[in-house]
Amino acid sequence: MASVEISEPLLHDADKIKAVESVDQVPEWKDQITVRGLVVSAVLGSLFCIITHKLNLTVGIIPSLNVAAGLLGFFFVKSWTGFLSKLGFSVKPFTRQENTVIQTCVVACYGLAFSGGFGSYLIAMDERTYKLIGEDYPGNRAQDVINPSLWWMTGFLVVVSFLGLFSLVPLRKVMVLDYKLTYPSGTATAMLINSFHTKSGAELAGKQVHCLGKYLSMSLIWSCFKWFFSGIGDSCGFDNFPSFGLTLFKNTFYFDFSPTYVGCGLICPHIVNCSVLLGAIISWGFLWPLISQHAGHWYPADLGSDDFKGLYGYKVFIAIALILGDGLYNLIKIIAITLKEISSKSSKQSNLPLVIEKLDGESSEVTLEQKKRDEVFLKDRIPNWVAGSGYVALVAISTVTMPIIFPPLKWYLVLCSYILAPALAFCNSYGTGLTDWSLASTYGKIGLFIIASLVGSDGGVIAGLAACGVMMSIVSTAADLMQDFKTGYLTMSSAKSMFISQVVGTAMGCVIAPLTFWLFWTAFDIGSPDGPYKAPYAVIFREMAILGIEGFSELPKHCLAMCCGFFVAALVINLLRDATPKKISQYIPIPMAMAVPFYIGAYFAIDMFVGTVILYIWERVNRKDSEDFAGAVASGLICGDGIWTIPSAILSIFKVNPPICMYFGPSLSS
Amino acid sequence: MASVEISEPLLHDADKIKAVESVDQVPEWKDQITVRGLVVSAVLGSLFCIITHKLNLTVGIIPSLNVAAGLLGFFFVKSWTGFLSKLGFSVKPFTRQENTVIQTCVVACYGLAFSGGFGSYLIAMDERTYKLIGEDYPGNRAQDVINPSLWWMTGFLVVVSFLGLFSLVPLRKVMVLDYKLTYPSGTATAMLINSFHTKSGAELAGKQVHCLGKYLSMSLIWSCFKWFFSGIGDSCGFDNFPSFGLTLFKNTFYFDFSPTYVGCGLICPHIVNCSVLLGAIISWGFLWPLISQHAGHWYPADLGSDDFKGLYGYKVFIAIALILGDGLYNLIKIIAITLKEISSKSSKQSNLPLVIEKLDGESSEVTLEQKKRDEVFLKDRIPNWVAGSGYVALVAISTVTMPIIFPPLKWYLVLCSYILAPALAFCNSYGTGLTDWSLASTYGKIGLFIIASLVGSDGGVIAGLAACGVMMSIVSTAADLMQDFKTGYLTMSSAKSMFISQVVGTAMGCVIAPLTFWLFWTAFDIGSPDGPYKAPYAVIFREMAILGIEGFSELPKHCLAMCCGFFVAALVINLLRDATPKKISQYIPIPMAMAVPFYIGAYFAIDMFVGTVILYIWERVNRKDSEDFAGAVASGLICGDGIWTIPSAILSIFKVNPPICMYFGPSLSS
Repeated sequence: MASVEISEPLLHDADKIKAVESVDQVPEWKDQITVRGLVVSAVLGSLFCIITHKLNLTVGIIPSLNVAAGLLGFFFVKSWTGFLSKLGFSVKPFTRQENTVIQTCVVACYGLAFSGGFGSYLIAMDERTYKLIGEDYPGNRAQDVINPSLWWMTGFLVVVSFLGLFSLVPLRKVMVLDYKLTYPSGTATAMLINSFHTKSGAELAGKQVHCLGKYLSMSLIWSCFKWFFSGIGDSCGFDNFPSFGLTLFKNTFYFDFSPTYVGCGLICPHIVNCSVLLGAIISWGFLWPLISQHAGHWYPADLGSDDFKGLYGYKVFIAIALILGDGLYNLIKIIAITLKEISSKSSKQSNLPLVIEKLDGESSEVTLEQKKRDEVFLKDRIPNWVAGSGYVALVAISTVTMPIIFPPLKWYLVLCSYILAPALAFCNSYGTGLTDWSLASTYGKIGLFIIASLVGSDGGVIAGLAACGVMMSIVSTAADLMQDFKTGYLTMSSAKSMFISQVVGTAMGCVIAPLTFWLFWTAFDIGSPDGPYKAPYAVIFREMAILGIEGFSELPKHCLAMCCGFFVAALVINLLRDATPKKISQYIPIPMAMAVPFYIGAYFAIDMFVGTVILYIWERVNRKDSEDFAGAVASGLICGDGIWTIPSAILSIFKVNPPICMYFGPSLSS
Repeated sequence: MASVEISEPLLHDADKIKAVESVDQVPEWKDQITVRGLVVSAVLGSLFCIITHKLNLTVGIIPSLNVAAGLLGFFFVKSWTGFLSKLGFSVKPFTRQENTVIQTCVVACYGLAFSGGFGSYLIAMDERTYKLIGEDYPGNRAQDVINPSLWWMTGFLVVVSFLGLFSLVPLRKVMVLDYKLTYPSGTATAMLINSFHTKSGAELAGKQVHCLGKYLSMSLIWSCFKWFFSGIGDSCGFDNFPSFGLTLFKNTFYFDFSPTYVGCGLICPHIVNCSVLLGAIISWGFLWPLISQHAGHWYPADLGSDDFKGLYGYKVFIAIALILGDGLYNLIKIIAITLKEISSKSSKQSNLPLVIEKLDGESSEVTLEQKKRDEVFLKDRIPNWVAGSGYVALVAISTVTMPIIFPPLKWYLVLCSYILAPALAFCNSYGTGLTDWSLASTYGKIGLFIIASLVGSDGGVIAGLAACGVMMSIVSTAADLMQDFKTGYLTMSSAKSMFISQVVGTAMGCVIAPLTFWLFWTAFDIGSPDGPYKAPYAVIFREMAILGIEGFSELPKHCLAMCCGFFVAALVINLLRDATPKKISQYIPIPMAMAVPFYIGAYFAIDMFVGTVILYIWERVNRKDSEDFAGAVASGLICGDGIWTIPSAILSIFKVNPPICMYFGPSLSS
């Protein structure tokens, strides 16, 4: 997936030690997994699956929802225990370990909505995408169509998702204890959870929950209000509000009053939002209008708006060029860093622990603290033979079932992938630990190109897309797992309970993710280039698979040259970001973020920019407040809108249409 | 005018003494009137004239803008002196007396926009109102039409507006010092000004100004944004937003996102807002739908929506019945109170001062304070001969000019009015002093009925309306004057400077009020029953004049019975309000406020109710905050929207139409 996943450490390193100051008795690993925890996990997992699907199927930018998961998990269990003790029942106290287990389970569950490819490789196989690209498009064959179905999707998820979990378990100690990788998101989550369970932290968390609840209800009410005016008809409702006039609206520049994307703008770093806006301005402000002036010259003028031989082709292929350029650069860079780190580690093993001890004055206490952590972390081991035999068993099942689901993907290809996968999973986990940037989608795309070109024109599209899924799932889950182990380490949760909670979360995800996707699939017009559910990556992934087979034969005029230009530009911009000092590089845009609006349109860039402006002003007016509450506000906005998706989907399934159509037209001359 | 004018004391009586604690040297009366003060007065006078016109021509409910005038006057002069002293100039300090003079001048100026009848008796003479009532309507003659023109309106204002000022000047000492009338609005204004000139008060005022400015700009930007979508066409823009669905929209129940009426709702007491909403529900929710079921039976079914023989007739006459019933009750009540008070005053003269001295422990200090006030108040007398000869001269001019402007109003009728007017002016000033409820429009209506029936069918309509104007102007200006003298007394301003500032303000008003009205008249479609500028009282006043001549001959079926019912209901409700203890009576609605939506529609009642709900919640959440800032927020909302009227009128005059039409329709079936 080319989605830009960004997570933000909410707490500063200075808080790290303080937050753990009053560590109580660490509960047994079995006591860390509770029924109430699993119920809460299932509820939150469903909510976040829905939100992820929605984002994936509309714009494809997914901000980190870990903060929201942490806050809401804390809120649910706290209110539940509070409610029960008010009724006079004695309840088990809510520990940080239980909280961590819930968090892990939720993240594992909704992670599948992302790595399951519902917005990318799976949906790229369906008939609509096939038709969108065109029946006479070379390499795009009617045989290479597999429409989504609840059954095969669940089966697919089951056979691929658990593999990642088992592949890296033995390396847990190496990566977390020996290499002491940072895993910024995992650390931030741990800090958040730890802070909830200190007194002042619980107070702040209470306020944050209140704030989240307020914005959640506002966003929910607003989304509900908007729905009433989005009646069936030609571009009704607030989603088509020409806030900057009709001319700019035609070029997709408008503010569509979407709380979700404003919330995304609040969570994502300023540079991401600005990159998105810059990309929107370059593409929809200049490039597309310029290219469309050459209609009839560069490409036939009478094509439909979604014909790859016309403007649409430029949009898709230039976006692909940017995404591939950025992905390739980062892959090379992170592999280089990884290799360098590993080689330097092996020579001076005890470097990092020393640094940490030096950083803190009370080093003896820290060491004590750390020793306890290490001890807890190593206590409940997952035996290597469990991991090993689990992996082998899963590989066996998978090798048999995958060719049944995707006939062109032969069993020997699957087996090869599984032999290679752990190495790639290790690379990605290590890279994520260093940079917080999971390149799962890049690994997936590499798998896609390799397998598609190996299989060739006879079924290469399906085989490539399926291979992409296999790669992405393993690599992404492995990185998540290691991230969670880091969180567990810092919150003194048992490794065993963490692992079990991940397995449970993944199992939940295998059911919940396809089910919630099915909600969208039946309720909305997924993949229509004119509707809100454009599923932008469906076309991009299918086109990539076709590219892998056919090469660049059918691109419109000058498109290949432009693609090369943007590919090189992505490399150069990334190089500049790394080569210049931070003072300059912080203003250099991120090519991956720039690519998203190229294909979808500028409207969500406007929304996100509004979010970033609000955050900027907020930071200037009251920095402390914005640090404490921006995440909660953003999560509230996103979750409220996400919750409204459920009733709106149900209404849509039962063919209840919004009663009113609000539409916009030029003013009649008087 | 039947407008509901409500003012709210912003400060409690306990603050009274404190606010005056540090009285500096009182400046000479000449120093109280400054050039900068006059400039600020002119600017604010124009702004408030525009706001008053807008409210008058749309819904006819005008909240008190005195707080806004005070805050903005303070802000302008303070920033001006601050700016100049930063540049190194030495500036005269800004005294509370100068502030009072500005306030008086602004209020006198924009008072004319109300008492000048631009939304009621003057506009009732024009051709559109004549045509709206119908050419074949008995008593509605084509000869009785005088269209607005800048010249005659200015002339009319000049000859009638100054009369009120001169009529009561000699009674100033009697009413303010001897009778010690409260004049709640005048007292509140004085308290506000006094508070500005204490240190903590100035700080709070600064915050209030900041708050006002913030909401002013938000409201201005929002109004500007709304404008772009209100393109020419069938019911475009936010003014036609069916917020509660299309069915309720057809019955005029919708929220139209108007900051002005939400602001009105914030300023007006809860009971006024609730009364308005109740009136809207009774009329548009039940009465009109019920009556319209009898179309074809009670009245011909094929009539236009603005034909008096149909539903429109019910709307207008029932509203008139409520307004007259309420007005009559209050007139009788206030005359009764006045007579009772005067008779009891003459027996025990020194009653009230004693009470005041007893109320405060430090009575000696208070007496000192008060003595100083009395001294200042009596120092710069306006000689009685000035007032007397001024009045006589003005009467002479007026007696000559009025029949020229309004031919049916003979000179002897004018003269009679002027002989009676001072007595009525005294009644009204006294009543306002006691109850804060100026009944100018009721006195005006009495003049209208008397003169119209005296003159009879040959020109009675014009004569009655003009007489209404004469009465209303004198009676209203006299009450304002006395109110201002009370303010001046409490802020230790010179009576001479107060009087001169009133004269100047009135002179400004004579120019500014017609000019700003002209802006509306040329720019918008005034009086159209389907547009936003319905000028609701134009039809009501003309109908009343016709009623005075013709009686109830042409009303549709059952209309007279209903009118009688509502007339009696108005009397009974008022009686209940006075007879029951406050615990109950505070929940009894005000008939006058209920009457307004009968004719106009329910939408502004929704807006005002939104305002009242916001205020209610605010009061519950943070009472102190709401008391300090609700007025500023409301003023900001009203003023921002009011300022936008200027560019929107100019755009309209230059035929620049909004580019986009946002319209609403039923959802197409899929």
